[in-house]
Amino acid sequence: MESLKVSLGDRSYPIHIGQNLLGLADLLVPHIKGSQVCIVSNETIAPLYLQAVETALHDYSIISVILPDGENYKTLETAALIYDSLLESNFSRSSTLIALGGGVVGDITGFAAATYQRGIRFIQMPTTLLSQVDSSVGGKTGVNRPLGKNMVGAFYQPQCVVIDTTTLNTLPDRELKAGLAEVIKYGLINNTDFLAWIEKHIDDLLARDPDCMRHAIRISCEEKAAIVAEDETESGIRAILNYGHTFGHAIETAMGYGNWLHGEAVATGMVMAADLSMRMGFIRQNDLDRVVELIRRAGLPLIPPAMAAETWINLMKKDKKAQQGLLRFILLKGLGKAAIVDEVPASTLRETLGAISPKT
Amino acid sequence: MESLKVSLGDRSYPIHIGQNLLGLADLLVPHIKGSQVCIVSNETIAPLYLQAVETALHDYSIISVILPDGENYKTLETAALIYDSLLESNFSRSSTLIALGGGVVGDITGFAAATYQRGIRFIQMPTTLLSQVDSSVGGKTGVNRPLGKNMVGAFYQPQCVVIDTTTLNTLPDRELKAGLAEVIKYGLINNTDFLAWIEKHIDDLLARDPDCMRHAIRISCEEKAAIVAEDETESGIRAILNYGHTFGHAIETAMGYGNWLHGEAVATGMVMAADLSMRMGFIRQNDLDRVVELIRRAGLPLIPPAMAAETWINLMKKDKKAQQGLLRFILLKGLGKAAIVDEVPASTLRETLGAISPKT
Repeated sequence: MESLKVSLGDRSYPIHIGQNLLGLADLLVPHIKGSQVCIVSNETIAPLYLQAVETALHDYSIISVILPDGENYKTLETAALIYDSLLESNFSRSSTLIALGGGVVGDITGFAAATYQRGIRFIQMPTTLLSQVDSSVGGKTGVNRPLGKNMVGAFYQPQCVVIDTTTLNTLPDRELKAGLAEVIKYGLINNTDFLAWIEKHIDDLLARDPDCMRHAIRISCEEKAAIVAEDETESGIRAILNYGHTFGHAIETAMGYGNWLHGEAVATGMVMAADLSMRMGFIRQNDLDRVVELIRRAGLPLIPPAMAAETWINLMKKDKKAQQGLLRFILLKGLGKAAIVDEVPASTLRETLGAISPKT
Repeated sequence: MESLKVSLGDRSYPIHIGQNLLGLADLLVPHIKGSQVCIVSNETIAPLYLQAVETALHDYSIISVILPDGENYKTLETAALIYDSLLESNFSRSSTLIALGGGVVGDITGFAAATYQRGIRFIQMPTTLLSQVDSSVGGKTGVNRPLGKNMVGAFYQPQCVVIDTTTLNTLPDRELKAGLAEVIKYGLINNTDFLAWIEKHIDDLLARDPDCMRHAIRISCEEKAAIVAEDETESGIRAILNYGHTFGHAIETAMGYGNWLHGEAVATGMVMAADLSMRMGFIRQNDLDRVVELIRRAGLPLIPPAMAAETWINLMKKDKKAQQGLLRFILLKGLGKAAIVDEVPASTLRETLGAISPKT
């Protein structure tokens, strides 16, 4: 087992990464206050892993809430299911939530923890690659609205993150690839050594080689932890973690949540952002080619759905990074060097939207 | 105009109290970031005061959201109305919410501000006595669930509180009296000089004498600001602000939100808590008589609705102060001296529930 730390003063917390960690009570007990624990999972994950966690915590008063599976259920209504289960069991302010599942479970559970009785403790136990390398770390919690993804939420840090890499054995291929999109992102935005390592090991990662997988998760978590420690509430540098996400969120919103996986939309968004970076003169054609090639080898989509430029722009204006209707992009100033860019000419953006689009 | 400060480090903020403040842009402008302002009000208050605030802020991009009036609408669904109005107008993270109304408007608006795009600025402009002396100060925000009041929410401080005492001229008598319940509370829990002043001036307050009203609001806000500064998230001493509220919330939940006004339920709850304090040996009969007499003179209810003891206890176990099913009360250890008490014998509680109940 390897352990890292997210350094946030009195809100610091550990990330544990290793095999067969779900049943280890010792990792959880120090972070639980009181006797009431509620495990939130979903219909897919609960049959596989819920019992292991329940057994580890048999000394506690445990309830579980099993949500339907999918981004479509990342809503206020689903959060209300959690609130009401806690209320029915008289769960107090001293109770603890555990999120056992992917990013949707983690985001909703974190939001419920941030807002139940004005805030209770929670622990992340992510079971998908995407949530292990991204959403379980950093305290972004929230739910979607019909008009935009993650538009309701809170910055609220977990007590700890327990990443059991054996859970990846049951992950569908499509979700594994979607998770690799975020792994690739860390290489592109901040770490060319890691980018080169991914390029060398992409086939091992797709084959779920345990050592490669653990390394990829560890470096990804280290990258994220360092950026979050520097800028917890995204007043500046943290925004570079959203590389590919402005285009990606637009795809997800346009296609309806869950039809494109988040990682798939981000992968295509990273291609589009790299294309825009090149058109802005920040990177060269061979840098762009390298981005495209890696995403292609990871089995991720390179082309977004057909959408009019106006539709793209309207959707992107709803992005949280947008400032009062002005678009803001995270672009590459070089491979491994992402930056926030406010001054993208509309004409250049339209060139990218035209170039990276389905050819009819 | 008088100004106080709530001291919370970099989350400190001013409270301004005076006549005709709603139209003073100078009080608001320093606390608004960006150009987007959304005023949240309700169907009763908006026709009276919305225009004054809109006119003061005519240099900004203003939208307004008018909610239905009443505690029944203090829900996640109503918060969603605010989120969606902001999204429809492409309101960014730099936008500002203004709560113009009573406690329900303030609590929902604060919760929406705490959670829209993971947190935006907000300003409190309370228009009822209850919200001016209590809910607008201190950062408690939230909504109700069918199983309990304020069970979903966040601690989230406003940028400033603007209390325009002229808004009290349009307040119905019943709501004025309900607000006086919280004013009396500050005297009972922490300030015997203020208690004596209220006893002397209760008829002036009921007659809305402007000087008496301003004094009562200022002292109430000072008392609250001092306690909040000491314990922002209610890990200890702040709980004494809930004097009368454990019984009161049970009344509100049992009767359906809005049938008893919050201040009415708290008034009866304060009588019950005083009775329990006497039975615990903390205060004398003549102290209890003084509490009862003042609440009677304020025109507030002394007797709760008929309810079985088991119903009372089950409802009170859902109180946020309850610790894993154990009841916790705020009791008077003397007039002006409230304290948290965990060890109330069930038999003593049942005596109070029997003594302070409708005589059939």
